[in-house]
Amino acid sequence: MILNQINSPQDVKSLSKEELVQLAAEAQQALLEKTSHHGGHNGPNFGMVEMTIALHYVFNSPVDKLIFDVSHQSYIHKMLTGRAQAFLDPVHYDDVSGYTNPKESEHDLFTIGHTSTSLALASGVSKARDVKGDQYNVVAVIGDGSLSGGMAYEGLNQIATENTNLIVIVNDNDQSIAKNPAGGIYTALRTLRQSKGTAEDNIFKALGYDYHYLDEGNDLEQLIKLFQDVKDTDHPVLLHIHTQKGKGIPFMEENREAFHAGGPYDPKTGAYQSFGNNEPTYSSVTTDYLMEKAQKDADVVTISSGTPMFAFDQQQREALGSQFVDVGIAEEEAATMSAGLAKNGAKPVWFVASTFMQRTYDQWSHDIALNNLPATVLVYMASVSGMNDESHLGFFDIPFLAHIPNVVYLAPTSKEEHLAMMDWAIDQKDHPVAIRVPVGPLRETGAVDHTDYSILNKNQVTQKGSQVALFGLGNFYSLAEEVAKKLADDHGIQGTIVNPKFITGLDTELLDSLTDDHQVVVTLEDGILEGGYGQMVASYLGNTDLKVQNYGVKKAYPDRYNPQDYLAQNGITVDNIVNQVVQSLK
Amino acid sequence: MILNQINSPQDVKSLSKEELVQLAAEAQQALLEKTSHHGGHNGPNFGMVEMTIALHYVFNSPVDKLIFDVSHQSYIHKMLTGRAQAFLDPVHYDDVSGYTNPKESEHDLFTIGHTSTSLALASGVSKARDVKGDQYNVVAVIGDGSLSGGMAYEGLNQIATENTNLIVIVNDNDQSIAKNPAGGIYTALRTLRQSKGTAEDNIFKALGYDYHYLDEGNDLEQLIKLFQDVKDTDHPVLLHIHTQKGKGIPFMEENREAFHAGGPYDPKTGAYQSFGNNEPTYSSVTTDYLMEKAQKDADVVTISSGTPMFAFDQQQREALGSQFVDVGIAEEEAATMSAGLAKNGAKPVWFVASTFMQRTYDQWSHDIALNNLPATVLVYMASVSGMNDESHLGFFDIPFLAHIPNVVYLAPTSKEEHLAMMDWAIDQKDHPVAIRVPVGPLRETGAVDHTDYSILNKNQVTQKGSQVALFGLGNFYSLAEEVAKKLADDHGIQGTIVNPKFITGLDTELLDSLTDDHQVVVTLEDGILEGGYGQMVASYLGNTDLKVQNYGVKKAYPDRYNPQDYLAQNGITVDNIVNQVVQSLK
Repeated sequence: MILNQINSPQDVKSLSKEELVQLAAEAQQALLEKTSHHGGHNGPNFGMVEMTIALHYVFNSPVDKLIFDVSHQSYIHKMLTGRAQAFLDPVHYDDVSGYTNPKESEHDLFTIGHTSTSLALASGVSKARDVKGDQYNVVAVIGDGSLSGGMAYEGLNQIATENTNLIVIVNDNDQSIAKNPAGGIYTALRTLRQSKGTAEDNIFKALGYDYHYLDEGNDLEQLIKLFQDVKDTDHPVLLHIHTQKGKGIPFMEENREAFHAGGPYDPKTGAYQSFGNNEPTYSSVTTDYLMEKAQKDADVVTISSGTPMFAFDQQQREALGSQFVDVGIAEEEAATMSAGLAKNGAKPVWFVASTFMQRTYDQWSHDIALNNLPATVLVYMASVSGMNDESHLGFFDIPFLAHIPNVVYLAPTSKEEHLAMMDWAIDQKDHPVAIRVPVGPLRETGAVDHTDYSILNKNQVTQKGSQVALFGLGNFYSLAEEVAKKLADDHGIQGTIVNPKFITGLDTELLDSLTDDHQVVVTLEDGILEGGYGQMVASYLGNTDLKVQNYGVKKAYPDRYNPQDYLAQNGITVDNIVNQVVQSLK
Repeated sequence: MILNQINSPQDVKSLSKEELVQLAAEAQQALLEKTSHHGGHNGPNFGMVEMTIALHYVFNSPVDKLIFDVSHQSYIHKMLTGRAQAFLDPVHYDDVSGYTNPKESEHDLFTIGHTSTSLALASGVSKARDVKGDQYNVVAVIGDGSLSGGMAYEGLNQIATENTNLIVIVNDNDQSIAKNPAGGIYTALRTLRQSKGTAEDNIFKALGYDYHYLDEGNDLEQLIKLFQDVKDTDHPVLLHIHTQKGKGIPFMEENREAFHAGGPYDPKTGAYQSFGNNEPTYSSVTTDYLMEKAQKDADVVTISSGTPMFAFDQQQREALGSQFVDVGIAEEEAATMSAGLAKNGAKPVWFVASTFMQRTYDQWSHDIALNNLPATVLVYMASVSGMNDESHLGFFDIPFLAHIPNVVYLAPTSKEEHLAMMDWAIDQKDHPVAIRVPVGPLRETGAVDHTDYSILNKNQVTQKGSQVALFGLGNFYSLAEEVAKKLADDHGIQGTIVNPKFITGLDTELLDSLTDDHQVVVTLEDGILEGGYGQMVASYLGNTDLKVQNYGVKKAYPDRYNPQDYLAQNGITVDNIVNQVVQSLK
């Protein structure tokens, strides 16, 4: 075996052509072994086996700088830069993250998990090189899926302007996470692929690039030649390389969306290991609701920004027809398109992961909220218990969104509330509304929620008590109930339990009334403390005799943590909260 | 006069060719009169006189939808849609804002003041039309300067994908606010202009557009013909129209940057009315420092995102040479390029207005902060007393920025502190640092600031007292002093005054110590209350006996307000704060 003897890119350079081919086969096999057992980003990496070997054969990392956009295609790069054991030995599978990470290796320049950033990063790296008078190649690898992001275009412009050594590789496998949208950049790429790079109206040439096309992007020899040709260029070069997503694995080549990421799966048949029992979840409830709502109301337009699978499978998208739009990985477009839709009588529903919503603060503020347009946004995985890679954390949404004027951000605590909130949000015409799609086990009250959500910031007191009032926001409502129960059981304290429902404003009438017979107010939120919901409560009550305890996690970027442990580290356990309350009541 | 008889676009349609020409002359004259006395966006509007008349002559607003990107070229549109008096009668000059505004007219679809949003908005409007089965034209007008923004590209892609009636007008006057950068999209536009639209490698054709070029973009007749030709199209059309910024006004045509916006000015000579006395300001101090620092340290790279004039005039930019980069209106590129620069040994200093920084939350979080890179950002006009158009408010920066992990956000209170903070930020290697460039009169202490800012979150107690502690953040430090003085003078209360310096973290040691001999803590910040600095203090002290009063403005989008009045409405006056403190101490 060659792969287990590769300790650095230097070892790749000394291999013969035949050995390089063998290395590719071994790398592919290791990928199949690991991803089928462990899961991960499958298709993107299988398509990059040959290209990554060629990159390290020709370029000289870490002197030359390789930057992988979104970096979920960097597994082979990891194998070739001293981390092969993390792909060969199951014991070491978790030694590496799924993304480039400077803490792992000097060959990883940046931690990257969001798309379309590589070109802007590369433009800075090459500028730093030139300012410092250094000499090295800067190579950015970006997939066609990532090219739909506006940042990629801004980077293309800046690189062309700098007019210095920078090699942009467009890794074109004609597939984003899901199928690419039909027009725009995807028309441009398709036309180029079909003409083997010779089409008139070449967007990259128009922007000023020295453009090269390679149709056989999984052919090692051709890749090596191409890279050798452009190495040490003195101007911006764009290599448009046509690769096959899931290359060499028939079921991946055939089903590119299903095998973008996921696992474990059967390495022979591609059958994904089945989880769970098909019980309804907040996700399935949301999807069912949206399908039904769209069918009943032709004005409803559901919008995905490159991640349709959060809500709809391929069949559901087809059923939705023109009531489903995937703008590609272009969150800003999704947000501001929602504003345009809402303004002219449609009912947009954009669904997006919290970590990707972060790309749209100004679109929220300037386009949706300032214009006070009734767009609905469903925020997925906004929780400490959502995605736990440091690059995909979803728990910054409350400081991000809650302080934008006019926005109504809702935190449902049950299936029934979630359904009622969605229905109100989509049909009303007075506010931009975001809904924090609950994370955690489906909670059902069994009673339809008839709340009139147009009465803003009205909290629900679900248990009227005294001494302590527990505000359990959204996902943490159950925690409030547990704390209340333990206070009652162990200390005889019958507290008040509040379901705030609204994140973006306070029920001041309720808060004012607490001064009568309460001493402590506790806020519980499934997100960061700083700039969060609880701090608004603390501020509002700051000048009263009430004590306020805010619970949330400290601002930080934890990586691949256990949610329960992480919450405990942040003092968010029933026991600790009960103790703190009792202490404060003394 | 024809202009004062134009009450709606219908009145434009009934004019003869000769009358249209006269209308253009009158509109130009009215523009000159108003902008020379009142100031405003000059160049963009003078370039759009003929085009706007042609648009309203051919299209049928408000049934047809006209969307003006950034909308600072919409003055003629306002004249022709029932608002002529606001340009003819000085008494009515302030009746209209400088941007489109649905509260003013049904012909204004959106409030727009940030660039590059028009295409995403238009993509939503046209989708809404199609979903509802309506019939009308959607026309988006976007300048070449706005085309550098990534959102514009995302919009171009989505419009091409929708493949329905949508007319994109690229108003190409070859000038952003400042001169356009050299490459990328500006290479593409230049090549097209020089070839009168016939160049190979047409970026718009590559994206799938039916492309038309008009070289004489200030020729009414040709404009009308072009618009008539494409009206009611069933597919996306892109009209590339070459116009002259500042058309017809020689000093504006010659000096396009100076006459992008500003005034009052002499309508004959173009001499700008002179303000002030050339006394140093926080702006001039910042500029002087940066010029000197760049000269001393070749690693310093200053970055502008399309607004270089905030810090440097044309001469200064030339002097900076390769140590100055203008990425165009592409804030995301500026932020993430900073990360790339910082990673590879350069010292990036991005300077940006608070309202435009809002476009970069994810670039801050994912690219700069998660990678913990020593980029420096100078945040301009972050104050209630900064820009006061509802679309350009700069006082949301603290909730936006302060809760991103790893970021150090500093609030200087004097010239000396500002200089020391910049120097520390630029040279250190441990943190991303943002500095809130002070707004207001320059305050000088006369003593060089030797604070070691690497000791994070260390507040400065400038007056040690008891009972009340006043935390005066940045611009509001002087307010804290005034409140303290009045408390002493009128009530004999010798309070403590604190200069927090750090926005992103608390001096917990200091806060803990206050419980000994203080009863009230007051926080003063020049920004919104919700998610702000004060609420962190309130939360930290929530479980103590200390009372906390937070002062800031409520989240809202006030428009063209008087800052002093607005602060007073929000309770931010010396008298009110003193009263509240005295009340609380009783």
